Amino acid sequence: MTTDVTQTLIPFESFQVGQVQEFGAYEVTEEEIIEFASKYDPQFFHLDPEAAKKSLFGGLCASGWHTCAMTMRMMVDNMERRGTSLGSPGVDDLRWRKPVYPGDVLSVRMEVVGLEPSKSRPQIGIVLSTVQTRNQKGEVVMEFLSKGIFPRREARGGE
Amino acid sequence: MTTDVTQTLIPFESFQVGQVQEFGAYEVTEEEIIEFASKYDPQFFHLDPEAAKKSLFGGLCASGWHTCAMTMRMMVDNMERRGTSLGSPGVDDLRWRKPVYPGDVLSVRMEVVGLEPSKSRPQIGIVLSTVQTRNQKGEVVMEFLSKGIFPRREARGGE
Repeated sequence: MTTDVTQTLIPFESFQVGQVQEFGAYEVTEEEIIEFASKYDPQFFHLDPEAAKKSLFGGLCASGWHTCAMTMRMMVDNMERRGTSLGSPGVDDLRWRKPVYPGDVLSVRMEVVGLEPSKSRPQIGIVLSTVQTRNQKGEVVMEFLSKGIFPRREARGGE
Repeated sequence: MTTDVTQTLIPFESFQVGQVQEFGAYEVTEEEIIEFASKYDPQFFHLDPEAAKKSLFGGLCASGWHTCAMTMRMMVDNMERRGTSLGSPGVDDLRWRKPVYPGDVLSVRMEVVGLEPSKSRPQIGIVLSTVQTRNQKGEVVMEFLSKGIFPRREARGGE
């Protein structure tokens, strides 16, 4: 792995259970909520500020998938500072705990909760982390268990 | 519930375990993959067709969250024909099984696998469904267990 695009991969061995990172300050706008929803989740409570007042949410709020996307952006920006992964097989237990409203400022808290070297592919390992997205009040608006694929140092040493 | 925006809610009681729906034909473009990734997931394998050839994916592919978003769009379009939900508390076991490439045409298969009347909020129930997103070859590119909130008919009758 000698190309520029993979030079910043974080080795699996650099993670430890219990590591906590907090990062991000994503300002949520009404314009972006409506733009995302228009393309991907055109339900009235994500599109129409007036009609949304009559919904369970009490006002216009971001699509849950938009909150995932905004969270991912903060995670990638953080990875750019620290280094990147090779991708992810998926996430577990994704929960939208509270609505995300225009004017909210989101941040992320990640905690490493598990390390799983791959048995079938010895050159990689899976890092399990709880990801919490919080608003400016400190309320958890979304959380999930993330699975990130990272290269193993031992394997890379043999290349 | 007499406003236009909620007239098309599907009652919880209309769902049955084993019901299957198949719908959608979402054409994935390189332009949209890059546009989404630029905003929300700027990793090189979602942004740069040349560099992506050197990634694990073998070429430019959609952000997993973009695949979620495209899947949601197909689900909402389908709900607009059949009726809508009140939202969702989250999803379980989200897995990105295969890369989604430019030129792929995605569709959705949903199967109802569980029905949970809410004990704390008798006016609603949760419909559990497996959601599979497939490409034009019939390959499952993503799957998750969805949880949709729907109004209970008995409760609505009392309003």
